[in-house]
Amino acid sequence: MSDLEAPGGAPTLDFEKLGGIITAVAQDADTREVRMVGFMDREAWERTLATGYAHYHSRSRGRLWKKGESSGNVQEVREIRVDCDRDAVLLLVRQVGDVTCHTGTRTCFYRRVEDGRLVRVEDA
Amino acid sequence: MSDLEAPGGAPTLDFEKLGGIITAVAQDADTREVRMVGFMDREAWERTLATGYAHYHSRSRGRLWKKGESSGNVQEVREIRVDCDRDAVLLLVRQVGDVTCHTGTRTCFYRRVEDGRLVRVEDA
Repeated sequence: MSDLEAPGGAPTLDFEKLGGIITAVAQDADTREVRMVGFMDREAWERTLATGYAHYHSRSRGRLWKKGESSGNVQEVREIRVDCDRDAVLLLVRQVGDVTCHTGTRTCFYRRVEDGRLVRVEDA
Repeated sequence: MSDLEAPGGAPTLDFEKLGGIITAVAQDADTREVRMVGFMDREAWERTLATGYAHYHSRSRGRLWKKGESSGNVQEVREIRVDCDRDAVLLLVRQVGDVTCHTGTRTCFYRRVEDGRLVRVEDA
């Protein structure tokens, strides 16, 4: 077993730096659009690995959250990348329903900064 | 002035939720590769807007950090997207030098999870 592995078989990530969570970026595996940024605690990370569906840790609700659990817009995880510091992961996902954001848009990043203002992006 | 704007002309972001910082994802504007994830405090955000170069807040060093300040591999910011909660930004960048990571790779996400192990991605 290399030092990359924990006894349970999951790669060892650094949950300490941010106080129990890591950053998780969900990118569309096909279009490469960045759809959202969230956080995972150890439970969300392990549920994601075990199920193949993106799970996050909701800081506001203080609980595990399967993306799409109420909307049906779940994220099938195709591939997971880990960054150099092991405190961030990149999920390459297929977004069921093609809507990620609770605002009904494809991506949570549906506004751009233009001359100091936030302007809605037409194709988001 | 709309509620999207702060007096200084910069959009109002939510720096409170994460204790003074927001999450910042840098994505290559041309290839759409996600190159890194970092954090910005208010100073880093304002320096990024003012200069057009990505600035982050280094948590480990506790200071403002212009990406590439020592390596020369700066990030020219082409566009900035803001997410629904205003606590994360997506920078679409041109990565000078084509290397983002201190490990010498194009992206910090140069490893993928494979059967519970971290495996180096060939083209990263």
